[in-house]
Amino acid sequence: MANFKGHALPGSFFLLFGLWWSVKSVLKHHSKKLNKNGRVHPGFDQVEIIEGVVKVIFATIGILAEQFVPDGPHMYLFSGEPRTWVKLMNWQHSTMYLFFGLSGVMDIVTYSSAKIPLGLDRLMLAVAVFVEGFLFYFHVSNRPMLDKHIHSLLLTAIFAVAISIFLEVFLRDNVILELFRASLTILQGTWFWQIGFVLFPPFGGPEWDENDHDNMMFITMCFCWHYALAIFITAVNYMLVQWCTRSCRKNNQELELRLGTLKQKCWKNDHATLLNGSDEE
Amino acid sequence: MANFKGHALPGSFFLLFGLWWSVKSVLKHHSKKLNKNGRVHPGFDQVEIIEGVVKVIFATIGILAEQFVPDGPHMYLFSGEPRTWVKLMNWQHSTMYLFFGLSGVMDIVTYSSAKIPLGLDRLMLAVAVFVEGFLFYFHVSNRPMLDKHIHSLLLTAIFAVAISIFLEVFLRDNVILELFRASLTILQGTWFWQIGFVLFPPFGGPEWDENDHDNMMFITMCFCWHYALAIFITAVNYMLVQWCTRSCRKNNQELELRLGTLKQKCWKNDHATLLNGSDEE
Amino acid sequence: MANFKGHALPGSFFLLFGLWWSVKSVLKHHSKKLNKNGRVHPGFDQVEIIEGVVKVIFATIGILAEQFVPDGPHMYLFSGEPRTWVKLMNWQHSTMYLFFGLSGVMDIVTYSSAKIPLGLDRLMLAVAVFVEGFLFYFHVSNRPMLDKHIHSLLLTAIFAVAISIFLEVFLRDNVILELFRASLTILQGTWFWQIGFVLFPPFGGPEWDENDHDNMMFITMCFCWHYALAIFITAVNYMLVQWCTRSCRKNNQELELRLGTLKQKCWKNDHATLLNGSDEE
Amino acid sequence: MANFKGHALPGSFFLLFGLWWSVKSVLKHHSKKLNKNGRVHPGFDQVEIIEGVVKVIFATIGILAEQFVPDGPHMYLFSGEPRTWVKLMNWQHSTMYLFFGLSGVMDIVTYSSAKIPLGLDRLMLAVAVFVEGFLFYFHVSNRPMLDKHIHSLLLTAIFAVAISIFLEVFLRDNVILELFRASLTILQGTWFWQIGFVLFPPFGGPEWDENDHDNMMFITMCFCWHYALAIFITAVNYMLVQWCTRSCRKNNQELELRLGTLKQKCWKNDHATLLNGSDEE
Repeated sequence: MANFKGHALPGSFFLLFGLWWSVKSVLKHHSKKLNKNGRVHPGFDQVEIIEGVVKVIFATIGILAEQFVPDGPHMYLFSGEPRTWVKLMNWQHSTMYLFFGLSGVMDIVTYSSAKIPLGLDRLMLAVAVFVEGFLFYFHVSNRPMLDKHIHSLLLTAIFAVAISIFLEVFLRDNVILELFRASLTILQGTWFWQIGFVLFPPFGGPEWDENDHDNMMFITMCFCWHYALAIFITAVNYMLVQWCTRSCRKNNQELELRLGTLKQKCWKNDHATLLNGSDEE
Repeated sequence: MANFKGHALPGSFFLLFGLWWSVKSVLKHHSKKLNKNGRVHPGFDQVEIIEGVVKVIFATIGILAEQFVPDGPHMYLFSGEPRTWVKLMNWQHSTMYLFFGLSGVMDIVTYSSAKIPLGLDRLMLAVAVFVEGFLFYFHVSNRPMLDKHIHSLLLTAIFAVAISIFLEVFLRDNVILELFRASLTILQGTWFWQIGFVLFPPFGGPEWDENDHDNMMFITMCFCWHYALAIFITAVNYMLVQWCTRSCRKNNQELELRLGTLKQKCWKNDHATLLNGSDEE
Repeated sequence: MANFKGHALPGSFFLLFGLWWSVKSVLKHHSKKLNKNGRVHPGFDQVEIIEGVVKVIFATIGILAEQFVPDGPHMYLFSGEPRTWVKLMNWQHSTMYLFFGLSGVMDIVTYSSAKIPLGLDRLMLAVAVFVEGFLFYFHVSNRPMLDKHIHSLLLTAIFAVAISIFLEVFLRDNVILELFRASLTILQGTWFWQIGFVLFPPFGGPEWDENDHDNMMFITMCFCWHYALAIFITAVNYMLVQWCTRSCRKNNQELELRLGTLKQKCWKNDHATLLNGSDEE
Repeated sequence: MANFKGHALPGSFFLLFGLWWSVKSVLKHHSKKLNKNGRVHPGFDQVEIIEGVVKVIFATIGILAEQFVPDGPHMYLFSGEPRTWVKLMNWQHSTMYLFFGLSGVMDIVTYSSAKIPLGLDRLMLAVAVFVEGFLFYFHVSNRPMLDKHIHSLLLTAIFAVAISIFLEVFLRDNVILELFRASLTILQGTWFWQIGFVLFPPFGGPEWDENDHDNMMFITMCFCWHYALAIFITAVNYMLVQWCTRSCRKNNQELELRLGTLKQKCWKNDHATLLNGSDEE
């Protein structure tokens, strides 16, 4: 969908996943450090399955939106005589969503059964991100310079994520790679919004001159600022999660302490009552 | 051989190997998990040698087919005055088959003797795949746009396989890399068939416009669909093998159980007879 | 700042850091070999924090210099009607400094608290260097051939450093990677000075013909000579540090020995005095 | 030196080193397998030092040949008024030899002192090979198509060697990487000779049409044949070394056995004489 919404929708998906991944990776990291055996809490498997389900749902929404918007292909691949392809752009976007959906299915299968070798979920996710980049790469030829450039910047983020996730196949549960992935996914999300704002200004306003070299230079720099912002967001998330887990643990300890005192009191009372009772008897 | 058969032949080879590798890697993975020492069953060495022999046979068939088809070079490299090269395309394909043959020889040597360092077989296979991609890369210049593009998509699959196999030199018997390799080889196989169907429609039909940008976009997307299919085939193979090994083991256990009961019965009977016999004596 | 000073300033920064890193990595290597537990002396954490602070200070100086030189943008991003971008070159340089500043902040945070996973400091530094190269890459289009070439040679050094630091995320405290990084950073430093001398000769003199192919060939070779020099400087630093640590240790041992003898003497004297005193009493 | 000898000289150097490395790596591999502690025989350090010395000598010969051939620059870098560069091609070749010389020096230093961290020798060699490729890359622009292509094929081999040696920094004494390096170095050597034969036919004969596409296709294929040959040579070397070490060991064992029998005989004789002597006394 070559309009503002068509960029805001995937942008929001990526932003959500980036934020969630930055939270998840820190939670897993703390869980590993707290556990005596150095393993992740088994409850995270449930979380991964839910993540997979959400991926499948988002992918389905994406495919349906691309196919059945008023100017979509409505599942027709070709039509007319001589045959011409129908709305290939929407078909390509549907294909991207399809692979993210497959990645969701793989997440569900991997974490719900111990039979599937771990790492296939990351490989499938890396493939999904790579396919996204691969289709984008051939997507943007024959367009004005700025349009091409703004999408090719996106490609940098996409291929960096793909490589980072591919490394996770072999370096599983590496918190640094996971935070790197999260920050790059946030970057993708905000950059999709940026593309929407530049190419299809939602509030009207003057259009960007797509062949001005200064615009190109600004956009390149702006991409770096977006990444600085993504790093900042990831850092804030890191600190929030750390603060929450710590205060949570303190509350738990206090609660346990109070419960302990209460128990002791009760026990004393009971004991006293018992003794008194035995006295009274 | 720039015709339909010339693409169907290697396509079938790759498809067969891809299917076989997806089966083999799962079998090896299960064998490793069942064995208490975590090693692969030694019988797999025999299988690898047979695979090597098959590779050598396929490579020989390929070379002979390329050289001695009616319009082939019949082993002449140059001819005429002034000298001109004879059917270099067929010579290049022969060279590709040659390297796959060398990889087969290396398989046989590696697995039949404990003296050769393990990993050389994977290195040689990676080299063979790389040489295939290398020759294709310089193969397709000076052709129409669609022809170039459809072959360059193939290159993506080829170089991805080459890198994946090169990683296997260091991460040997990694089931994820092996399944990745299998799926990409299936992709190569089906894509060779696709190239044949697009460039040399076997059942006649209208020819593709080789300079239409929409055709390019469709073909790129179609390549991704082929990979989705390859992943699906690999997944089905995985499940079939898992189901087979499990039912096989159950049958074995039942058989052993029945044999056990039978033996016990026999033993009892014998014993009884013996006792009776001793009584009768 | 497209003048001699604008290249001498970052050149000096990189040169300083390269020299410092070559010294630091050798010191750390020796500290590890001398310590019985094979760990780096904990005092190095203080050093890393100071390094982080220096990075932040240098980055701030760089940003302020780029913004507030007489022909700088003075923090204006756009101006006029119709809006045009103000001095984007200076803004891009400021962005580069910003990321090095962020890397400094990450150094401080990582080494002052045990909560942050180690390796994030290297990742942030790798990102900072990558962003530098990324901005340079799109920086130099639309310039004369020699200008482009001399900057693209710089890119080789920059991306090599970025990859090398990224490897350090996983191979932490690897002295070879650290010396490699140091030598490449020295190369960057000297090459910035070289660019300044070629494009903006400070002492007048004839200008370089920016479209002469021979100049290009010389510059390429000159880049290699700079690296040979950088290797030489790193080697000299290595030897100096080794010599210093050894003579330092010897002096310490001698000092300890002398102190020991002195102590013994004193003790004897005291003892003698004591004995005499007890005699005198 | 743009003539036949200028390609035959480095070709012979690389061929020699490739052959030597293929022998050395197999010898080291066997030495490791025979030693009970799994280490390489310490005598190999001496061999590495000699290799370093040979590298330095070869590099010196190369530099002197490039500088002082009749049409060489004789150490003049520029001359005339206005100043022009003198024979930059020869200077570039000298630079390549310089880096191989530095690698030789590093070999000597690394293996003669236990203070230098191992791996720096491989890093320096990787840098030397990379610099060779780097200079070649910018070397061959502005030439006819075939000339460019035949050199760019060489680049494939050079960069593959550089990457392979860089991996050896981290995977030290990996026999597969060492054999891979040896085979690629042999390829470089034979390909230098091939370039000489194609561009400067030594025995006269018709010149190659440098813009014929068929020639390009043949040369690409020929490069692959060279690699098949290089693999074959490496394999033959492997077998020869294996056969030699085995027969050597057998001879040694026989010798030891004979010496043992002789010793026993001598001992018996001595003993007998002794006994007799003691009898005689």
